[in-house]
Amino acid sequence: MRIVLDAMGSDNYPAPDIEGAVLAAREWGDEIILVGRESDIRQELARYDTASLKLEIVHASEVIEMDDKPAWAAREKKNSSMHVGMGLVRAGEADGYVTAGNTGGVLAVATLHTLRRIRGVKRPVLVAILPMPAGRVVALDIGANADCRPEYLLQFALMGSIYARAVLDCAKPRVALLSNGEEPGKGNTLVKETYDLLADSDLNFIGNIEPKEAVTGHADVVVSDGFTGNVFIKTIEGTAKMLTGFIRDEIKASPLTAVGGLLAKPAFGRVARQVDPFEVGGGPLLGVNGVVIIGHGRSNGRAIRSAIGQARKAVQGGVVEAIRTGLAKEHK
Amino acid sequence: MRIVLDAMGSDNYPAPDIEGAVLAAREWGDEIILVGRESDIRQELARYDTASLKLEIVHASEVIEMDDKPAWAAREKKNSSMHVGMGLVRAGEADGYVTAGNTGGVLAVATLHTLRRIRGVKRPVLVAILPMPAGRVVALDIGANADCRPEYLLQFALMGSIYARAVLDCAKPRVALLSNGEEPGKGNTLVKETYDLLADSDLNFIGNIEPKEAVTGHADVVVSDGFTGNVFIKTIEGTAKMLTGFIRDEIKASPLTAVGGLLAKPAFGRVARQVDPFEVGGGPLLGVNGVVIIGHGRSNGRAIRSAIGQARKAVQGGVVEAIRTGLAKEHK
Repeated sequence: MRIVLDAMGSDNYPAPDIEGAVLAAREWGDEIILVGRESDIRQELARYDTASLKLEIVHASEVIEMDDKPAWAAREKKNSSMHVGMGLVRAGEADGYVTAGNTGGVLAVATLHTLRRIRGVKRPVLVAILPMPAGRVVALDIGANADCRPEYLLQFALMGSIYARAVLDCAKPRVALLSNGEEPGKGNTLVKETYDLLADSDLNFIGNIEPKEAVTGHADVVVSDGFTGNVFIKTIEGTAKMLTGFIRDEIKASPLTAVGGLLAKPAFGRVARQVDPFEVGGGPLLGVNGVVIIGHGRSNGRAIRSAIGQARKAVQGGVVEAIRTGLAKEHK
Repeated sequence: MRIVLDAMGSDNYPAPDIEGAVLAAREWGDEIILVGRESDIRQELARYDTASLKLEIVHASEVIEMDDKPAWAAREKKNSSMHVGMGLVRAGEADGYVTAGNTGGVLAVATLHTLRRIRGVKRPVLVAILPMPAGRVVALDIGANADCRPEYLLQFALMGSIYARAVLDCAKPRVALLSNGEEPGKGNTLVKETYDLLADSDLNFIGNIEPKEAVTGHADVVVSDGFTGNVFIKTIEGTAKMLTGFIRDEIKASPLTAVGGLLAKPAFGRVARQVDPFEVGGGPLLGVNGVVIIGHGRSNGRAIRSAIGQARKAVQGGVVEAIRTGLAKEHK
């Protein structure tokens, strides 16, 4: 397997990106193609013993930065590590692409300039793999399409199911529609119309789901428009961060509770590891002609390694081909 | 001041409701009118020493139950404690109404059968007062209107500002629009169109806000459509519950961390008290001709007392009159 890694992806590129590539190459032995400014990559790579690793470098002179406007950057920076990297996948010279870069940039470069949509896909979709205590949950769309139509959400559900089956070892993923109430008939117009489409589909649709059930693992695939999904995952992240910070501050506020906090530390550690997004590494962009995994800008080496792991599983699970087949069936 | 309390509101009515009324009457000395089945109320009241309290009973033969369909119940149960209770406010015989009952029922009885909309209000709106570590946040709409237009959200912002000023002692409330990104131009079509209306208004509009900033108190009033707002507050609740439960389980999982947990207990207690929704008690329904506070169905006596406290503040702050004036100005 050959995975392309965007060496100029993360907020602190190229150090975390290169570290992740080295970790992944050591762990799985796959070939990893580092794409970006060759001199920067070589300089960073020199810090590691890479003699036995299958690491290759492909030069790309430009970088799409975090604060670049996606559409502009995709159009103007044709020699970016995103264009070159996804171009390798498009050309069949690599099996998947991983980046911790500008999400809008990835979306624009993938859909408009390199991989392009799979035939029949109405809208590519961004996916988060949520590391919940009860198990991993596929949430989509988390931001690619702020305004959606019911037919888009039906396809998101199909693509999310395929991903859960291929990557999360979930034989018959339970698909639910994120809503403000469980009963059929709850939701806004989009949710109500999508409900009927999902109920008529071959998917394992279990109905509407409220956020509290979604975060406790009552469904494997949670479907929404990209605006709602983005608010949903950012509220989970924001609440978790706010609450754990508040608990930490209150524990430190008195000597006795501080001692208690020290003794309880292993428990907090277990919690943190279980819900650590860096253990997941990233989520896929689904609906384009190639495996694309997008990690968080704040990724460290461990997160990049995990994102490469996601890409490996998506390639091994034949996600892209399964989506092609699934959509072809849908349109028969 | 005379506050009407729906004695048949909470999931376990009338015990928590009556307890809350007694607590409130003792604390503030106001007159509280208990509305519901008279015999049930008298039986429950007999458990308390009420000699010095200004408690009155008004009989209502019917109850809108939690699983009643709101529109049907509002139409068919005309003698419900909601109809009778809000009727007293409508008739000027009481200053405000508090219930922990069926939210959809309150909405239907208030808007269609008793208090009705304030002239110029396009859509009444449900509000949550979020007890965040950094301070209380007014979030609206949290469920009255799943599908909205920009003009509705502009009015929500106005009503939320008035409420924050009157009840939360916030002189110049910072109003923000819940979105998937901070920059102007982020959001779905509704958010983008509302942004322009808010930017042109006299409100203290600070722009779009992402969930992580909304939960850490970067705005006093967080505006959204009722579908998104409902997902937002239920995700906060669900994540907090999931995470604290997970931490508790992991702390109990070994003897050493369990001891640490015991020592740290005062810190957890401080956190729980600060973010306790029962200390807030409930949120208002804004845009109707009267003060209406809706508490959680799971309310205990303390929560009902807090909800009555909210109603007192809303009456003292002249919220209804301020909304009338604010809307009249808007339409000049």
